Amino acid sequence: MMEEDMENGRSYQERPRTFSTIRSKSSIPLVFRLLMRINPRALIILSLLVFSGVLYVGASTSPIVVFVFCICTLSLFFSLYLTKWVLAKDEGPPEMSEISDAIRDGAEGFFRTQYGTISKMACILAFVILGIYLFRTTTPQQEASGLGRATSAYITVASFLLGALCSGIAGFVGMWVSVRANVRVSSAARRSAREALQIAVRAGGFSAIVVVCMAVFGVAILYSTFYVWLGVDSPGSMKVTDLPLLLVGYGFGASFVALFAQLGGGIYTKAADVGADLVGKVEQGIPEDDPRNPAVIADLVGDNVGDCAARGADLFESIAAEIISAMILGGTMAQRCKIEDPSGFILFPLVVHSFDLVVSSVGILSIRGTRDPGLISPIEDPMSIMQKGYSITIMLAVLTFGVSTRWLLYTEQAPSAWLNFALCGLVGIITAYAFVWISKYYTDYKHEPVRLLALSSSTGHGTNIIAGVSLGMESTALPVLVISVAIISAYWLGQTSGLVDESGNPTGGLFGTAVATMGMLSTAGYVLTMDMFGPIADNAGGIVEMSQQPESVREITDVLDAVGNTTKATTKGFAIGSAALASFLLFSAYMDEVASFAQIPFKEVDIAVPEIFVGGLLGSMLIFLFSAWACSAVGKTAQEVVNEVRRQFIERPGIMDYKEKPDYGRCVAIVASASLREMIRPGALAIISPMAVGVIFRILGHSTGQPLLGAKVVASLLMFATVAGILMALFLNTAGGAWDNAKKYIETGALGGKGSESHKAAVTGDTVGDPFKDTAGPSLHVLIKMLATITLVMAPIFL
Amino acid sequence: MMEEDMENGRSYQERPRTFSTIRSKSSIPLVFRLLMRINPRALIILSLLVFSGVLYVGASTSPIVVFVFCICTLSLFFSLYLTKWVLAKDEGPPEMSEISDAIRDGAEGFFRTQYGTISKMACILAFVILGIYLFRTTTPQQEASGLGRATSAYITVASFLLGALCSGIAGFVGMWVSVRANVRVSSAARRSAREALQIAVRAGGFSAIVVVCMAVFGVAILYSTFYVWLGVDSPGSMKVTDLPLLLVGYGFGASFVALFAQLGGGIYTKAADVGADLVGKVEQGIPEDDPRNPAVIADLVGDNVGDCAARGADLFESIAAEIISAMILGGTMAQRCKIEDPSGFILFPLVVHSFDLVVSSVGILSIRGTRDPGLISPIEDPMSIMQKGYSITIMLAVLTFGVSTRWLLYTEQAPSAWLNFALCGLVGIITAYAFVWISKYYTDYKHEPVRLLALSSSTGHGTNIIAGVSLGMESTALPVLVISVAIISAYWLGQTSGLVDESGNPTGGLFGTAVATMGMLSTAGYVLTMDMFGPIADNAGGIVEMSQQPESVREITDVLDAVGNTTKATTKGFAIGSAALASFLLFSAYMDEVASFAQIPFKEVDIAVPEIFVGGLLGSMLIFLFSAWACSAVGKTAQEVVNEVRRQFIERPGIMDYKEKPDYGRCVAIVASASLREMIRPGALAIISPMAVGVIFRILGHSTGQPLLGAKVVASLLMFATVAGILMALFLNTAGGAWDNAKKYIETGALGGKGSESHKAAVTGDTVGDPFKDTAGPSLHVLIKMLATITLVMAPIFL
Repeated sequence: MMEEDMENGRSYQERPRTFSTIRSKSSIPLVFRLLMRINPRALIILSLLVFSGVLYVGASTSPIVVFVFCICTLSLFFSLYLTKWVLAKDEGPPEMSEISDAIRDGAEGFFRTQYGTISKMACILAFVILGIYLFRTTTPQQEASGLGRATSAYITVASFLLGALCSGIAGFVGMWVSVRANVRVSSAARRSAREALQIAVRAGGFSAIVVVCMAVFGVAILYSTFYVWLGVDSPGSMKVTDLPLLLVGYGFGASFVALFAQLGGGIYTKAADVGADLVGKVEQGIPEDDPRNPAVIADLVGDNVGDCAARGADLFESIAAEIISAMILGGTMAQRCKIEDPSGFILFPLVVHSFDLVVSSVGILSIRGTRDPGLISPIEDPMSIMQKGYSITIMLAVLTFGVSTRWLLYTEQAPSAWLNFALCGLVGIITAYAFVWISKYYTDYKHEPVRLLALSSSTGHGTNIIAGVSLGMESTALPVLVISVAIISAYWLGQTSGLVDESGNPTGGLFGTAVATMGMLSTAGYVLTMDMFGPIADNAGGIVEMSQQPESVREITDVLDAVGNTTKATTKGFAIGSAALASFLLFSAYMDEVASFAQIPFKEVDIAVPEIFVGGLLGSMLIFLFSAWACSAVGKTAQEVVNEVRRQFIERPGIMDYKEKPDYGRCVAIVASASLREMIRPGALAIISPMAVGVIFRILGHSTGQPLLGAKVVASLLMFATVAGILMALFLNTAGGAWDNAKKYIETGALGGKGSESHKAAVTGDTVGDPFKDTAGPSLHVLIKMLATITLVMAPIFL
Repeated sequence: MMEEDMENGRSYQERPRTFSTIRSKSSIPLVFRLLMRINPRALIILSLLVFSGVLYVGASTSPIVVFVFCICTLSLFFSLYLTKWVLAKDEGPPEMSEISDAIRDGAEGFFRTQYGTISKMACILAFVILGIYLFRTTTPQQEASGLGRATSAYITVASFLLGALCSGIAGFVGMWVSVRANVRVSSAARRSAREALQIAVRAGGFSAIVVVCMAVFGVAILYSTFYVWLGVDSPGSMKVTDLPLLLVGYGFGASFVALFAQLGGGIYTKAADVGADLVGKVEQGIPEDDPRNPAVIADLVGDNVGDCAARGADLFESIAAEIISAMILGGTMAQRCKIEDPSGFILFPLVVHSFDLVVSSVGILSIRGTRDPGLISPIEDPMSIMQKGYSITIMLAVLTFGVSTRWLLYTEQAPSAWLNFALCGLVGIITAYAFVWISKYYTDYKHEPVRLLALSSSTGHGTNIIAGVSLGMESTALPVLVISVAIISAYWLGQTSGLVDESGNPTGGLFGTAVATMGMLSTAGYVLTMDMFGPIADNAGGIVEMSQQPESVREITDVLDAVGNTTKATTKGFAIGSAALASFLLFSAYMDEVASFAQIPFKEVDIAVPEIFVGGLLGSMLIFLFSAWACSAVGKTAQEVVNEVRRQFIERPGIMDYKEKPDYGRCVAIVASASLREMIRPGALAIISPMAVGVIFRILGHSTGQPLLGAKVVASLLMFATVAGILMALFLNTAGGAWDNAKKYIETGALGGKGSESHKAAVTGDTVGDPFKDTAGPSLHVLIKMLATITLVMAPIFL
């Protein structure tokens, strides 16, 4: 082909390096189009009406809810400011915006298809839940409390659907901003690294704020609506301390959507990545992100749907599940201790996350552009700028956490309890920091583990894989020790808080653990910002490469991309730590729930009973099988991409010399449909197996005279799955991140640099790590919490 | 070099292909040398005296013990016959026996060093146990039963040391016969494949019979000695139902030695293998098992110390632990049900294994040489001959199992109980068969999984690894389902056996599970034979290659080697299945033990308590960390081998053209010392961590007013570690076996055959699989049982 070019008297280099029309069709979601048609003034009046209605409901519930509503509203305005600021930046030259448009089309197209499938499944599941709740047995007491069978069925289904919807919106917002910010970052990179960094951070900040806001707002609105509707705390109706249990449907809806979003997105992004590399880089020898590769757009789309959308849904679900479980535990404890006004204990998590919104906003704003454009000076690297922002956020979070505990958790029964709980929060914050530090130690090539991994590449592919697997497995030790210390110390701080039940037993232990979890998540907004920053920077790099910008621009986006990789890895550590704590809380909530449904005390899960031991075996096995299916899904889908790309290169020989436009859409469609198909099997496994196990052992228990056997076996399944899931996720995430960075370390010129045998071995490690760290690992975070919420919602069928 | 050869007018092929004196020094263990010096007649008289002494003690205990003694003695004579038969075969031409001598020297040398280290550690641990038991608190009842602090301390330490010694002998016997049989198999392969097969089977059979015999004999002798010495069942002394608890030291001693034997041997064999391949095959381009490679003898030695010696110790320990746990459970149940003569229930496992010796001997003898020498006919492949023997053994085992249950478990209180227990045994036998079948399905290239794995090699190293990891993780599902069904069905068969305690509650459940475990292990002798067959055939292949035999001979040993690979993989499935069941039993025994020490009921391990949940987290983490360290030990040691081999090639340039003899001894010494050093870290982790966790939580429990907290946390650690260990071992073994066979499948010519890109990717997979399936995986089997026995023995320090 090169020779042909020469013959035509036209150098290969002179050819246009992009296509004039990449974009095929535009799309704006129906809701937005409808909103845009409404007269702006009418819209404002409508919004004000809705807001005052919400505020009225909030005011009827508690002044604390009003405070939460106000902070959330202000934060939404702040996020609008961030969007406006980001969207006001230029989209750069047409060759950039064309690529960005193609990415946007692909991402929005996949989002539509994926969420179409997910919403159908959610509707089916909603009917299943409705059926279960309508036909379950209720006790006279339950009926008497004004919460009949039908009411609780509709409440659960409505919360489930709202949770699912909000989770979907969280994903959409993450993707929406990232497909718009990427091109603005690449355009800014042509002027100033600092400005590019600021745009990426603010874009990430926008979706982070929206996600946190929606989780808090959603739960608060549901809570106050139920409060007003059910006439809580009025004579003859339910108590406020039982109210949080009605919210579990919201958590389940959120985790259900997050699971499929993460699975589908994770399979999509890595299948496109691996497939594009296998044909493009290996077979055809064209560079990464080359516009001639038909799968390149699919690859860039993958970053948005796999990282932005899925992680948005994931963290939304984390926060929602954690708020709800803490509210349940707060309510239970307040009831046991006969605290006069329990609303402080119940609403505490909402306030913590309201402050989270404030301190994260400050953190995001602390990252500013400098006046004089130019490269980042060598002393101040982007990572340290981000870290500085994180330090500011953490310090403010410690302060506000102390304020909230004093405000809400002060009770005359135990005057120093709030101090103990503040210390629990501190434990959580320190745990979060330790997790971030440990994952950085194991995945950053500044430290020994990754350097040793890179060294093992010099003796071949095999030794590289052995070393990576060992590294990943070894890296589980420190986080487990940290989380163990955190659980026990927070529990004991809670126990010794002075809060006692009627018979004088200390009861604050579990709530202490809950407060530690909240402490851990008290900077969620900023952490999510750092996480969202990664894929935006990655995409910006791709756009810069595809539009053939000068080397200096590419250098800037490369630096940002590398920082993004580190922040992505550390956020995963953070996510798994909070998942571990949240699951432990949801486990207690599950036992309370079962006890209240069955009207039998349910205090223990004894693993010395054979059936319960078997439940544990099955739970751990579930994690292995789920991981296996998630990994193999990537392999299979990548194979389909390889076939399609090969076909296009054969059928359209003009692609290689830019005469013909590759059909990006077909690759996008193939990856999309394949990943949608492949996400079903692991997803269905996760949803059906706890239900099946519960029902089978319920029947076995009935026939052998063991009450609650089904519920107990499910509890054991849940606990073993949580433990195995935490370890497996730590292993997969760390091994994947370490392999990626070992490759990057060699690419800096160490051990022979790019193209050496060591580099080839390191690339193999990186390929293996891709589905580990971006598909199976993050899906496990969601799986753990989904299992906890599904068992809560499905509890009636285990009895 | 080739050109130089040509110039000298002498073709490369004419050169002598082996060295005249490979063997450096001879060694016979001191015990054997002493025995050989004694007059043969005196020896016979001495043996007779010892035997009649043992028989007298047995007769004073129970006629059942006499039966067991007689069968064991007969089996020992049978094993002597097998040795004589094997040793009577010729050692082949001198070039074969020289290589074999070198292998023998290396193996025996490593054995001495390794067991020297292990015995030192065992002595230290014995002192620790002595200290713990001498200073533990005892209750007046315990003192009154005649079993004072000092007595129980000496008993425990003596059992521990005897267990360790027997485990060492089991390993020694396995290695002793394999280093002698290998050359006889290779010599016989020059005449007839069938004869070679028969020699390998009978050699394997010899050590299998000795191992089983020693486990049964050891426990029986200890049991009857304690019975007579302590005057059991006479007024004022201990009850016979409490006697089995005194034997746990034996189990711990056995598993302690087995753990280090497996770790050291596993690291040795795979480090030598990987190291020899990396320099020999990859760098110098000489074939596998070439005599010029200084690490080739170390590689062949590794098969003997890693597979024969370690597996012998492993299965010895499996059988001993399982016999002891079943005896404990039988005793506990007999006591609860107030059965008049409990000796049948207690001694049942010894009888089952006596029959195991008989049926396995029949199975071994069923594999006969044909009269007319020649190749195995294409219809009758060695695998099917072995399978036929296995079927005969299984059918006989079913029969004898039924006989033993009717004989020993018949009681007038529950006349049909024996039938239920016979069915439990059947459940165990079916489980064993299912395990063997499942591991064959996932690791044999006749079936789909390995074929798909091989296909994934065609797209590169990375996809091969992803597919192998997925396959391994997926393969955990079926075994877990099988073991779950087995545990529950055996438990319920036991519960419904009609045996009830004083208050009428059914109590036979756990004993049912114990009987199922015995059913599973009721063909242990034959299974171990099949397992030992593998490394002998492998070694024979190496000797044939090194002594440059004709292609037809090599073909025969290749077929045998391939069969050996399959049997090795299936035995691992069998070992892990029995480990899972045995651990579950030992767990119950542990709870009984703690309750009897602490004089507090210990009925439940409630994972909803934060500390106990943390114990589970730590237990699962222990498995990950142990696996990581075992895998990375192989990588590190292989690196040392690579350096030594490179050094020898540089310093002795004559090696490559056969002018200089490579220093095999140095490689052997280096691998030996490195693997001895590397085995310490994972081994120490396994031993120290449960003790440390128990003591820490004991202190925490004391200061927070939770009695038994230490013991409960250790119980949870044990259970979670067992579950995680089963899954991890299944994953590692299956993935490793599948990778190995995917490579073999490609080497048969599929997907491009040897030398193709697919083959290279498959070789990477095989290298990764090596430490998985031969170091970490089998070490985990032992670890699981070691954890169960160490917690039993160390129980006093958790209280």
